[in-house]
Order: sequence, then structure tokens, then C-alpha cells
Amino acid sequence: MTTRIEHDLLGDMTLPSETWYGIQTQRAVDNFQITGVPISHFPELVRALAMVKSAAAKANADVGVLEPRKAEAIQSACAEIIDGALHEHFVVDLIQGGAGTSTNMNANEVIANLALTRLGFEKGDYAKLHPNDDVNRSQSTNDAYPTAACLSLQFAAEPLTQAIADLKTALEHKGAEFADVVKMGRTQLQDAVPMTLGQEFEGFAVTLGEDIERIAEACRLLCEVNLGGTAIGTGINTHPQYQALAVRHLATLSGKPIVPASNLVEASSDMGAFVFLSGMLKRFAIKLGKICNDLRLLSSGPRTGLGEIALPAMQPGSSIMPGKVNPVIPEAVNQTVYQVIANDLAVSLAAEAGQLQLNAMEPMIVYNLLNSMRMLCSACTMLQTRCIEGIEANREQCARHVDNSIGIITALVPHIGYSNASRIATKALTSGATVRELVIGEGLLDEAQLDRLLSPQAMLAPFQET
Amino acid sequence: MTTRIEHDLLGDMTLPSETWYGIQTQRAVDNFQITGVPISHFPELVRALAMVKSAAAKANADVGVLEPRKAEAIQSACAEIIDGALHEHFVVDLIQGGAGTSTNMNANEVIANLALTRLGFEKGDYAKLHPNDDVNRSQSTNDAYPTAACLSLQFAAEPLTQAIADLKTALEHKGAEFADVVKMGRTQLQDAVPMTLGQEFEGFAVTLGEDIERIAEACRLLCEVNLGGTAIGTGINTHPQYQALAVRHLATLSGKPIVPASNLVEASSDMGAFVFLSGMLKRFAIKLGKICNDLRLLSSGPRTGLGEIALPAMQPGSSIMPGKVNPVIPEAVNQTVYQVIANDLAVSLAAEAGQLQLNAMEPMIVYNLLNSMRMLCSACTMLQTRCIEGIEANREQCARHVDNSIGIITALVPHIGYSNASRIATKALTSGATVRELVIGEGLLDEAQLDRLLSPQAMLAPFQET
Amino acid sequence: MTTRIEHDLLGDMTLPSETWYGIQTQRAVDNFQITGVPISHFPELVRALAMVKSAAAKANADVGVLEPRKAEAIQSACAEIIDGALHEHFVVDLIQGGAGTSTNMNANEVIANLALTRLGFEKGDYAKLHPNDDVNRSQSTNDAYPTAACLSLQFAAEPLTQAIADLKTALEHKGAEFADVVKMGRTQLQDAVPMTLGQEFEGFAVTLGEDIERIAEACRLLCEVNLGGTAIGTGINTHPQYQALAVRHLATLSGKPIVPASNLVEASSDMGAFVFLSGMLKRFAIKLGKICNDLRLLSSGPRTGLGEIALPAMQPGSSIMPGKVNPVIPEAVNQTVYQVIANDLAVSLAAEAGQLQLNAMEPMIVYNLLNSMRMLCSACTMLQTRCIEGIEANREQCARHVDNSIGIITALVPHIGYSNASRIATKALTSGATVRELVIGEGLLDEAQLDRLLSPQAMLAPFQET
Amino acid sequence: MTTRIEHDLLGDMTLPSETWYGIQTQRAVDNFQITGVPISHFPELVRALAMVKSAAAKANADVGVLEPRKAEAIQSACAEIIDGALHEHFVVDLIQGGAGTSTNMNANEVIANLALTRLGFEKGDYAKLHPNDDVNRSQSTNDAYPTAACLSLQFAAEPLTQAIADLKTALEHKGAEFADVVKMGRTQLQDAVPMTLGQEFEGFAVTLGEDIERIAEACRLLCEVNLGGTAIGTGINTHPQYQALAVRHLATLSGKPIVPASNLVEASSDMGAFVFLSGMLKRFAIKLGKICNDLRLLSSGPRTGLGEIALPAMQPGSSIMPGKVNPVIPEAVNQTVYQVIANDLAVSLAAEAGQLQLNAMEPMIVYNLLNSMRMLCSACTMLQTRCIEGIEANREQCARHVDNSIGIITALVPHIGYSNASRIATKALTSGATVRELVIGEGLLDEAQLDRLLSPQAMLAPFQET
Repeated sequence: MTTRIEHDLLGDMTLPSETWYGIQTQRAVDNFQITGVPISHFPELVRALAMVKSAAAKANADVGVLEPRKAEAIQSACAEIIDGALHEHFVVDLIQGGAGTSTNMNANEVIANLALTRLGFEKGDYAKLHPNDDVNRSQSTNDAYPTAACLSLQFAAEPLTQAIADLKTALEHKGAEFADVVKMGRTQLQDAVPMTLGQEFEGFAVTLGEDIERIAEACRLLCEVNLGGTAIGTGINTHPQYQALAVRHLATLSGKPIVPASNLVEASSDMGAFVFLSGMLKRFAIKLGKICNDLRLLSSGPRTGLGEIALPAMQPGSSIMPGKVNPVIPEAVNQTVYQVIANDLAVSLAAEAGQLQLNAMEPMIVYNLLNSMRMLCSACTMLQTRCIEGIEANREQCARHVDNSIGIITALVPHIGYSNASRIATKALTSGATVRELVIGEGLLDEAQLDRLLSPQAMLAPFQET
Repeated sequence: MTTRIEHDLLGDMTLPSETWYGIQTQRAVDNFQITGVPISHFPELVRALAMVKSAAAKANADVGVLEPRKAEAIQSACAEIIDGALHEHFVVDLIQGGAGTSTNMNANEVIANLALTRLGFEKGDYAKLHPNDDVNRSQSTNDAYPTAACLSLQFAAEPLTQAIADLKTALEHKGAEFADVVKMGRTQLQDAVPMTLGQEFEGFAVTLGEDIERIAEACRLLCEVNLGGTAIGTGINTHPQYQALAVRHLATLSGKPIVPASNLVEASSDMGAFVFLSGMLKRFAIKLGKICNDLRLLSSGPRTGLGEIALPAMQPGSSIMPGKVNPVIPEAVNQTVYQVIANDLAVSLAAEAGQLQLNAMEPMIVYNLLNSMRMLCSACTMLQTRCIEGIEANREQCARHVDNSIGIITALVPHIGYSNASRIATKALTSGATVRELVIGEGLLDEAQLDRLLSPQAMLAPFQET
Repeated sequence: MTTRIEHDLLGDMTLPSETWYGIQTQRAVDNFQITGVPISHFPELVRALAMVKSAAAKANADVGVLEPRKAEAIQSACAEIIDGALHEHFVVDLIQGGAGTSTNMNANEVIANLALTRLGFEKGDYAKLHPNDDVNRSQSTNDAYPTAACLSLQFAAEPLTQAIADLKTALEHKGAEFADVVKMGRTQLQDAVPMTLGQEFEGFAVTLGEDIERIAEACRLLCEVNLGGTAIGTGINTHPQYQALAVRHLATLSGKPIVPASNLVEASSDMGAFVFLSGMLKRFAIKLGKICNDLRLLSSGPRTGLGEIALPAMQPGSSIMPGKVNPVIPEAVNQTVYQVIANDLAVSLAAEAGQLQLNAMEPMIVYNLLNSMRMLCSACTMLQTRCIEGIEANREQCARHVDNSIGIITALVPHIGYSNASRIATKALTSGATVRELVIGEGLLDEAQLDRLLSPQAMLAPFQET
Repeated sequence: MTTRIEHDLLGDMTLPSETWYGIQTQRAVDNFQITGVPISHFPELVRALAMVKSAAAKANADVGVLEPRKAEAIQSACAEIIDGALHEHFVVDLIQGGAGTSTNMNANEVIANLALTRLGFEKGDYAKLHPNDDVNRSQSTNDAYPTAACLSLQFAAEPLTQAIADLKTALEHKGAEFADVVKMGRTQLQDAVPMTLGQEFEGFAVTLGEDIERIAEACRLLCEVNLGGTAIGTGINTHPQYQALAVRHLATLSGKPIVPASNLVEASSDMGAFVFLSGMLKRFAIKLGKICNDLRLLSSGPRTGLGEIALPAMQPGSSIMPGKVNPVIPEAVNQTVYQVIANDLAVSLAAEAGQLQLNAMEPMIVYNLLNSMRMLCSACTMLQTRCIEGIEANREQCARHVDNSIGIITALVPHIGYSNASRIATKALTSGATVRELVIGEGLLDEAQLDRLLSPQAMLAPFQET
């Protein structure tokens, strides 16, 4: 094994020749072994880092503080990484001290070494092209890293919102398929009044669909970046034209409407956009959890539960009970939801821990957000393809519930009065008789009237004027 | 209105003559208007403060740093407060800055003024007996306040554990009452195997009962107090014998096995015992919540739910649906549970925010703990008296569920094999036939065998050797 | 004491004649004793309930399902309550089972009795005007209550956003006042590069100001109400024209741009808008907490801390240490922040617990949101008037920090190179010398150059082209 | 590639011959792709599963329901897995639906296939030895899985408590090393009274050390297992002697004092022991976080902060600021702490979601606990070896702080009175003079008296009797 020696503030270190990262990355790998999850676990973050470095290099060349030859080599190296090269050399643990310095240096070092080899030099020959002086030129971790983070989250939002849209579509299809299945609605788990199973699924679709826009709003806040602010937002050590150019290049490169934050000092330590996004992910997760709870309730049984729908069987349900099939997909989604809610707390705790001009806990904020987005994306797709699309209505059970229900008496209140209605409801409950039987028995209404008043058309909407 | 003038570091202030508290309390009242909940909302905290002050006064007299006449007046004033006097003059908001200084000074000032009048002086004549120099003698807020807090939480634990014990007893009674009601057990909301409704309620009783001991453990940790450590645990400005005496007097006065913490510097900033207690309250709340969720599931219906039990009707359920009765008591408990879980987070956040020699957020820790304990205590009593004691079993529904169930086939596995069992389970589900019908139909077992194998005795326990 | 007798599903009850509420309210008072905080604690909720009832009565009269005489009496009673009458008769505990039914019935009963007396009848003479049949006409708790809740939160947002705006203004004033105070910026609590104290306060103003718009967004979501959906969103028992009229009347009465939700079934159980608002409150709280943490850090000392600013003394800081003044106002705000973060968790837990067509936990969601808004409002005003406005800069300390700092070497990097800069930084640290001394000593730059490069103009912004 | 075909309730599936797991595992792999973290990520869980299966097989043979030849093959296979074999075939995602059924079946299938090959059969030849009928004999997921979980957590507690003990020792060493470094204590970030740096570190050691016992308590609760309860705790399909034997064998095999839970129905759905453990981990994390916050405060600077200690430099601190060294290790620990607090919330949410006879969310509870324990273990070791052991005191700065402090005046109160003390404190603050200078200037005490009263011996402890 051949090696090379690199040097930093703390001394020398020998690295295997084949590593594309350098001494500062290796120190961080040695220092931080918490989650075991490296930067490369989130390719969108690696791509975003490369875009920031590329945009900065181009802006540096524009304003004359970086040789065009170096800038081109850096941009070319970044392009390769954006296309997927060398991701496995982004190795630092995602929970790390230093406010992202190690992630930033990992990017600086890999890009420097890739650029060096493209220029015909050896890896580590930083006199020719330096991770700090050249790749990190006009940047601090404190602006480059959060800018890349904002961008990576926008990338992560793409598959997530697509997965939500697909799940919404699947729910709408079921809404249409079940539009004629009349069933009892329930409030507080007690029999209420009739509705259709289609309305129930359509409601699921509507509520999830709303959050596509909410997540888009969060992404709009993430478009305001502090690139150009360097260490604390004052722009120290940048050329006066650099910021505007760097941000514009980043917008072009990323295809996202990136703009400069209006106050860079504020933006350097503000975690507000991350907290906003996390809150939206939690909101979506809560909705998703409520739906999965409902699916599990509605499919409970098969004989001793509500049994109004049947979820598709995805795996044998029990190692001891023959024939048992469990709602494993919604259960896995519910657990994902809890994890996302917990991650939102982690984000909140870290956001509150910012001090003075920086928030040193930013790496875990980014980690939790990327993790939540990936998990929610998987959960949506799993729920859509392995559960929703295969759901079947138990039409007999739904009809039986309506027929036996006492709640339908609500529809008779305008016709027999609240007092009669209350008395009959109580009688039905204690005697076991149906509302229909009792109302006819008492001669309050006749069969034809009941057929009309208790028809789906009458019960599922505001009453008709007569 | 007659008035008096008091003075502190910041200047003079005019107070109405009838107020028993003084200038520092009034400043705190003016400064803090957050929750609107004053110290007096928790009489156990007022009593605990008075006990600490009384014990300190006695110890101060013992070691000769407080005149016996003053010490007696202070102890006498404290005794009145312990008996319930002047609680309404403990007026500072429970969320307050200053790490409890305002609560401590509120106590110092009320006690000083009460002692002054008992000695025949005017309120505010602090040259005769001083809130700081005499009542607070040998103390700092940083030891007197947390000591009182620990004591107040132990007082609050008494009605709470009694309420849990009473609730447990009510559940046990229902366990006995329902011991012969065979029903289907459910796992993952799917039909599993038979059990009795009595076992279900007995399980509730057992799980809650365990937490009486857990809360007692928490109280044991709260017995280690930092009284005598003064400002930061070094005991500055105390007499060498003071600490041991003050703690011993406090133990006597409170009837609790109070002991000195082993390391007073550590104890001054450590919130560990509060976090422990909060975690136990959360644990208990989670169990309570699970039980209430179950009660709402088991009583769902009356016609389209599980309907295995009926909760007592406590109020009309609906402003629109006649005859509807809702599980309002468990619902209120569930909400209490969420509040307690949230309060645990508040405690955790505050505990993590300690800095160096003190945790300035202690007032909100104490506030949340006392609040959670009071709410849980009320919730237990409400659940016991307004729900559990009136629950009735729906024996027909339970029996019907067992008869129709497919899950009972599990009991036949050792006799007809897993493969036959799986096949028959599937057939039962799709055909709507019962397991019993199909097994007899296929000639696998006869009526007598089935009667024996599917009897409660056989299905509710390990199988009998033959 | 004279009494009257009322009757409901569960039987008779004797009430004192002077109570304006009726039997269902009394049952709820008996049932729920959890927080001790009654509905009347939040006048904005009482007003919102009265507005909903008034709008519904008017719409009911419009479509001919309520006699004009009754409608007018109801509207007149509501108008009195909106103006502040009878709030003390809204007595039910804010944590209650029944999804708000008790709150809704409390409003129905008080309004019915007030309308009855205005019509010349006795309280309780419901045959003349009925809480359910008339006041609650065309409504269910499940639409009337959440609609009132949404409205009350918008009312609560008004003083809150005003308080934020005032706090922002106070911070801006300090930003201007301190615009010329150069100080060291810090990242990760380590000396970084210079900035002005004015930039620091201006950053605080900017970050809080952003959340005024975020809260306004949340209020826009709260404008979509489910009024007219009745029990489960199907609009059962309403006249076809009722919904549009009721919502329009409510918008007029409240002055808020209230509109109907697009899907009433979805809207009946969806807690998304509440979760959104709660997330925004948490976001704001986190920012507020970070600022207060910073204020406490910057004012630490007076002799052994950072000491760059002095907070106004609001009360003596210690019961034992003479002359000590503590940052009690920011500390109280920090605790408020923790409570708001915890309340957000309570809201999330409750929101996730919705089942099928309703969320029975809505009362505690509303309680926590109103509580958080009130506490944040108080905290902002407290922070503005009792802390920010009285802050003074310690200009000598700020200047001394810059002069002694090593971080200013960053500004020299473009002129002496990163390598020279690193070496001198290390030398400064170990020797205790200043950067300025060492750079001159090594002859790298002269006094005049350093005066220029280390001037505030040079260090606080991108470098100037030469 | 050769393949084999397996069959379950849902049909056939072709598997590569080399896979040791079977059809049910493969279905679960296909179904669940949420975290990407497989069972094998936690070898302690794999080992625990194998121990449970081995103990069950032995007990089954004892009571005569499993052929000795099969039992021996199963035990032998389990022994290999306990020794580390085939862990990479435990492939199911740790967040999974089915309450752990997939994890249990993964174990059953790998063990069955390993046992089959050891008996000379082919993998998949389940007629000879069956994953369900033989390996899972007398078990359900609902007892086997939680029992294994409890055991795995006890295994995970071993390295964690060792890491805490080592960290404690390192802190004690620093406590001894710094025993003579007098410094100012701070309360609420304001100068308080003197203490030693050694006391500060000794306090850290004490507070962490306490939690070794707390975690041990949690492990004691985890010793009560529900093995033998099968599906819902009734022990259906087990031999009457099986439970006692299986538990006893497990205790022997694991070396842990495993005992049967007293009520198996309760134990089947109770998550209390997990919640307890999670609460203890959170408590420990909060303490760890407070210490790291303190370390970052005490090492702030080097020139504009408290600067009382220096942390060892572990990596260059900044990509832009030369010579900057950041407290990266405590920062990484702080983030770990937030993650553990968040994981505790995830555990709480999942625990509250249990329904009736089971908690389907158990897999994520176990995942979060194992994850938190591993992260805390790493964090402790990182903190010990990369931070604490290299900390140095800045003795000059500590002494300077004491000399300049006003807080030392507290020690003079018993001698010059509170009123004189307050006046001099204020004068010192405004004039910049030292307390010593002013007291001498006013002639209140002389140099010799001050030397004695302000000596470390006098200020660091209760006063001496004279």
C-alpha cells in the first residue's frame, strides 16, 4: 500500500494513496463515531456540496481571486461528483462537532484532490491547488455548509412530494371506487351518522394533498441562503461582487430559485427555515399516522372488529396463530411517523441551542431532516403500493352496520322531533330492535317515508327543501 | 388605605399595610406575569417552604447564630403557615426568573412579617427581624428552594399514590366481577385467541399498581437535599454544625426521611431527581393512556363497534345526535396523559439548560411536576369513580365473538396440525362458516372433542397433560 | 336560595336560579376537574363561540328553520356576550372529554337562558327557546366548536403579533443605538471575527420580525372552517343554503376572512391548521429562546463573564450574595419557551390521536394553543419593556475584546497568507501577545497598514477593491 | 445461481440457495425499507434471539414436545449464532410492522436452516425441521421477541455502564488534578462565590456515576420476561411445565437473572420497563449535555470568553479563520444528547400506542433503545479519551477572576454586615475597584483580616468557629 503524508495545524498524518479525502477528513472520522451514518448516505447532500463549491469557484474566477485554470479544474471535479462520482469518499459521521466544518473540509479535500489529478498533479499536492485557499476560497463552513444543506433539502423534497402525490392519487382512486358504499360514520368511536366509504378515502386524499403545498412553502424559505456571509455574515474576506455572483451561479447550477438572505448576520445563526420544514414534516407525519390508525381500525377483525375494509395480505401474520394476517404496512408507517415526530424534537432542541453568531448543532438538524424526508418518502410509497392499492371494501358489513345503527335516527329529528328521537334511540339500544322497526311500530312514520328519509341521498347531505 | 414603605437594592416602594409579603415579592409580581398561576396554587409548596424556614431557624438557634427569641417567632410563624394560614400571600407567578429567588423571598418576607406581628412589631420593621438576615439566615435560594421543592413533591405524591391505589382496587374488583366472561383477545386489532374480560381488567390493575413503587423510588431520590450548601454547595456563610442540624430538624418536621446529599456542589445544580420523577409520571401516564384507549375501543359501538363493555353514561354525548353517549371520561384522561407527557418534555428541556453551578430554570421544573401530579391525581379519581366502577360487561357480545372467531383454531393446532389449521382458517374466513362447523364437516374432530378443546378451561391456559 | 330543575337524557338536576348555564354544563363541571382552568380564562374563546351562535341563528332565520323572534333574541344575547357579559358563566374545565360538546353546550345554555330572559321568560324554560333545538340549530359540536376555536386563535394572534412587532422595534432601536460598538463575533463560543453590537441586535429584530408573517400564514389556514358540516361533515340536518349563509355572517361579524373548507368531511377531523399554528409558535419560541440565551451570555459577569452588555436590574438577585443582579427577565422568557415547545408536543400528540370522523382531543389542542399564545404575548412584552429597552453596552469591554482578540487575524489572511496567519495566531495564543504586536514585530505589515486593515470599516464587510 | 422454492400462506417464492433465511424473511425485506438498518446492526439482539430459541428448544425437549435430536440441532445452531455466525443473515429492517413477527421469523428461519444443514439436510427442507413447528415451538412472537429484546438491552447496558464508569474515572482524575485551582463559581452566569475547579470536575463525576445504578435498576426491571405466555399471555399451546423451564434455561444461558413476569397477560402488552429504561437514558443524556455545555462555556475564548480551561485540540476549527480551535467533541456529545432525548419521545409515542393485548410498535421501541445506548456509549468514550483526559486548567485566568470578583464579598457579610456589603458591592461594580481595595479604603477590615477571610480555606467551606 502506498501512502502520502498530509499536514495541518495539529501535525502530520499518513494517508493511503487511494483516499480522495485528506487529513482533516481523517481526523473527523477518527473523532466522530456516533451514528455510523456517513455523509454519502444522503447523495443529495454530496451533490449540493459540490454545487456550492462549483458556484463559488466560478464566482471567484469572475472577480479575479482564483486563477481560471484552478476554477475550471474545481468546477470540473464538482461536475463529476454531481454526476455521482466519489460519493463513497464522503465519509464523516453525520453527527459531528464543528458546525459542519468536517463535512465542508471533506468536500474541499475530495474536490481538491480530484481537481489535482485532473490537472496532472498528485493527490495531496496542495501547493498546486489547496482545499482551503482555493476550493474554499471566499467561503467559510458557516456559509457554504448551510447553503448546501438548504439545497440538499430541496432536492430531498422532490421524491417526497412525488410520493405524496402518488399516494394521494391512489387514495382518490379508492375514493371513487367506494363512492357507493354507504357506511356508518363514527365520532369518538361511537356510531354517528351515515357517510360513504368513498368520502372517507377522498378525505384522506385531500388532507395529504394539502401538505404538498406546505412542503413547497418550506422549500421557498430554504431558497434564501447565506452564501457570501463567510464566518459570521459580515462577508469578511470576500470580494464585494462575489456574493451576488456565487448565489446566481448556484441558482443556475441547481435549477432552484436560490436568492441571498436579506440579512446575512441573522441568516448565519438562524435555524428558522429548518424548524419550519421540520414542523411541516411533522404535520404531514401526523396526518399520515391518523390515516394508518384509521386503516387499522376499519380493517380490524376479521370477525370481532369493525371489518369494513380488508387490507391486502403482505405476509403471514403470526408465528403461532394459523391464518392470521396483520396490518403490517400501516403499522410500519405508524412507527415511521413516531420517528419523524421525534426527529422534529431533535431539530427543535438543536435549533434552540444556537449561541451568538452560529448554531454548532446544525449537522444534526440536517441529518434529522434528511432522515425524516427519506423515511417519509419510503413510507408513502410502501403505503401506496403495498396497502392502499389493494384495499377492498366489505360491502355487506358496511350495509349491515347502517341497517343496525341507531345513529341514523339523527336524520329523522326534523320529522319526529328531538324528544321522540331520544326516546326511541334509548329503546333501540336496550331492546336490540332497529330504529326502523320501532318508528314503524309506534306509527310515527310509514315504510315509504322511512325509505325516503333513510335513503343514502337523504342522509348523506343537507336535507332537501320540500 | 394605609401603607408602608420598604427598601431594597433598587430603591423604595410603597406597599399597602395589609400585604404580608414585602418589596421583593412585589417586584417579582410586577416582573413576572406569564402563567397567572401563583405559588399558592400548590399548598404543598407553601407548606414545604415554611418547614424549611422553620428547620433552618431552629438549627440557627442551635448553633448560636440566631437569637432564640427570633428563632421562636420564625418557627411559630412557620407553624401557622404549615397549618394553612396566609397561603394567599404567596403570590409570585410559578414561572419566574431568578432560579426561585422570588419564591424564596416571598416566603422570607411573609414569615418575617408574621413573626414581627407576633413579636408585637409592625410589618416591615425589618430592623427587628429581617427577611434575609434572620429568616433566610444560613440559607441561599439555591439550597432552600430546591429543598422545599423536593419536599413539596413528596407531599404531592401522597394523594397521587392513594388515587392510583384506589383506581387499582376498582380495576381489581372489575377483574373479579368479569372473571367468567370469556372473550376474544386481540393482537394488532386482529382476532387472536380467547381470554377473559377479567384477565383484561386484572392486567390493568397490575400494570398501574407497579407504578406506586416506581413513584416511591422517585420520592426516595428526592429525600437527598442540598440544604446547607447555600449559594453553590460549598456551604459558605454557614456554621459547621448547621447543615446536619437543619436537615435533621426538617426530617422531624416533615415526617419524611430527608438526608443530606453526599456532594453538595453536585447537588446544587443537579436536576436528576426531578427528571427521574418526571420520567416515572410519564411512564404512569403512558400506561393510563393505553388503558383509556382500550376502554374506548372495547366500548366502541353500541352497534358498529366492538361493544364488549358499556361505560357508564356521564352526560349526553351529542348536541345533534339523540341518544348518543360518548366515552368522555377516558377521553379526558387521554388528554391529561398528553399534557403530562408534554410536561415531561418541559422538565427535560429545563433540566438540560442548567449552567455551571445552578439551574436557573428550576421554577418551571417544579411547576410542571406539581401540575402533572395534581392532574394525574384528579384523572385517576375521575376514572375510578366516574367510569371504571360503573362499567358493565356485554356478555352476549363477548360470547358471540368467541363463537364466530377463527382465532380459536390456534387451540386445535396441537391436534390437527398447523397445515390443516391454516387451510381451515382461510376457508372459514372466505366462506363465513365457523371453525367448529368446518372441523366437524371435514371429520377431523368430533363434537365432544371440540367441546373439550374449545372450552374456556382448555383455551385459557397451558394445555393439560394427557 | 331559589332553584330550578332541568332535565336531560340522564335525568333531573336542581340548579341555583342564578346560574345562567344549565344541566349539561353542570354535569361537565362535575365530570371534569383536571386543570382548574375554565373556558372563561380565554375571553377570545367565549367571544368566538358567541359569534358562531349568532351567525348560525341569523342563517337559520334566513332559510326559515328558526323563528325570527327567536333568532333575534339569540343574536342579541350573543351580542351581549361578545361585549363581555356573562363570561364568568363559561365554567367548564378546558381539558374535557366529548370533543368540545361541553363547551358547546355551555354556550348553548348560557345563550338560551339570556335570550329567554330578554324575551321575558324564566331561565330554564326551554320549551320557549331551546339550547339544542334553537341555539344549536343546524349545528353539531363537531362543526360549531372547531369553528369557534379557529376564530378564537385568530383573535389571540392579534395581541401576540403586536407584541412581537413592539419587541422587534425595541430591538431595532438598540441596533441603531449600538451601530458603532465594534465587538468580537463568536462562533461555537470561540473568538471569531469582528462585528458591531448593533448588527447583533438588528439580527435579533430581523429574525423575530419574520415570524409575524409566519403567524399570519397560520391564521390564513385557520380561516377555512367546517361550519355547516354538522356531525361528520356531510351537512346532515342542515338546509342546503344554510352553510354559505352562516359562514358569510360569521365573516361579517368577526371581521375575519372566514371561508368554508373545501371538503367538509376532511375538515371535520383534520387538525392540520392547529398543528401548523403550533409549529409556528414553536418556531418563534425557539428564536426567542436563542435570543435570551445570547442576552444572558453577553451580560454574563459582571467581572468573570463576557460582560459586553448590561441588562437593567429588575430585582435583587440573591438572598445571600449582596449586590448580585441576575438576568431574571430572559430567564423567565427561556422558561416560557420551554413550556411552548412542550405545548407543541401536547398538540402533536392530541392531533395524532384523531380517530375516524373526529378528533376527540380537540379541547386540549385549543387549550394549549391559547395558552402558548398568551404566554408568548406576555413574554414578549416583558422582554421588551423590562429588559431590551434598558440594555446598555459596555463599550470599553467590547473594544478591549477586539484589541486582545486573535480572530482579527482573519482580516490579514489575504495580505500575509494563511500560513503566516496560522503561525502568528498560535504564537499569540501561547505568548499572550496581541496579533498587532506580533505582525509588527515580524515586519510583515506596518502600523499604518494595520490601522487600515483592522479598522472597523475593513473588518466588518467584504474587502475593498484596490 | 442455484435456487430453492419456499411456500407460505401467500404462495411460493424462489430464494437463492445460499440465503440462510427463508420466505417470510424475504417478504419482510420486500415490505419494509424504512431505516435501512437491519437487525444485524445490533449483534446483541441477534445473540439474544438465539439464546431464547435455544432455551425454548431445551425446554420443549424437557417436556417432551420436541424430539431430542431436533432440540439438539437447534441448540447447536443457536450456539453458533451466539458465537457470531450468520449475523449478516438477520436482514429485516428494524422498523417493521407485525410487532416483531418478521424479526422472530428471521431468527426461526436462519436457525432452522442452519440446524437442517447440521443434520445433513438441505436448507428449506422444513418437513425435517420446521421454523414454526420446531424452532418456534411453544412460542409466539409476542413472547419470544420481547424476551429477546429485554435480554439484548441488558447486553447493551454492559459496555454503556463501563463507558460511564471510565468517563467518571477520568473526571475524578481531573477533579484531583484541579483540587487546588481556586476559581469563581457562577450562578445564572453571574459571578457568585469561590470554589475549586476540582470541585467542579468532581461534581461532574458524581452526577454521572449515580446513573450507573439507575441503569442497573432499569436492567432489573428488564429481567422479568413474558416467555411462556405465547400469543396473549394465557400460555395457549404450551405444556404446563414449559414456562418455568424455558425461563430457567434462558437465565443459565444468558448469565442474567431472568425471571418470569408475575402476570403474563399484563406483561404481553406492557412497555413499562422499556419506558423506564428510556427515561433513565434520557436522564443520563441530560446530565451529559449539561456537562458538555459547561465545558464549552468554561473553555470559551481564548481571549473573549471565560477561558478557565483549555480543551485538547482535536482538529483545525475553521476553514477560514487561522488558528481557531473549536470544542468539537463536546459539541458532538451535545448533539448525541438531543438525539437520545428525541429517541425517548419516539419510545414514549410507541409505548402509548399499544392496543388491547399487544403493542404493535415494539420494534421501533427496541430500535430506539438500542440506538440510544450505542450512541451514548460511543459519546462517553469519545468524551473521555478525546476531551476530558486532555483538559488543562488556565490557572492564571482562574486566579484573576477570583481577584477581580465582587462575589467574594459574600464571605465578608458575617463580619461587615449585609448593608455595608451591598453598598461596597455596588461601588466596586461602578468604580471598577476591587472589593479588597474598597474594604481597606473604608477601614472596615485590615489586610491581615482580609487575607484570612478571603483565603481559599475560609471561602470554600462553612466558616470556622472562633
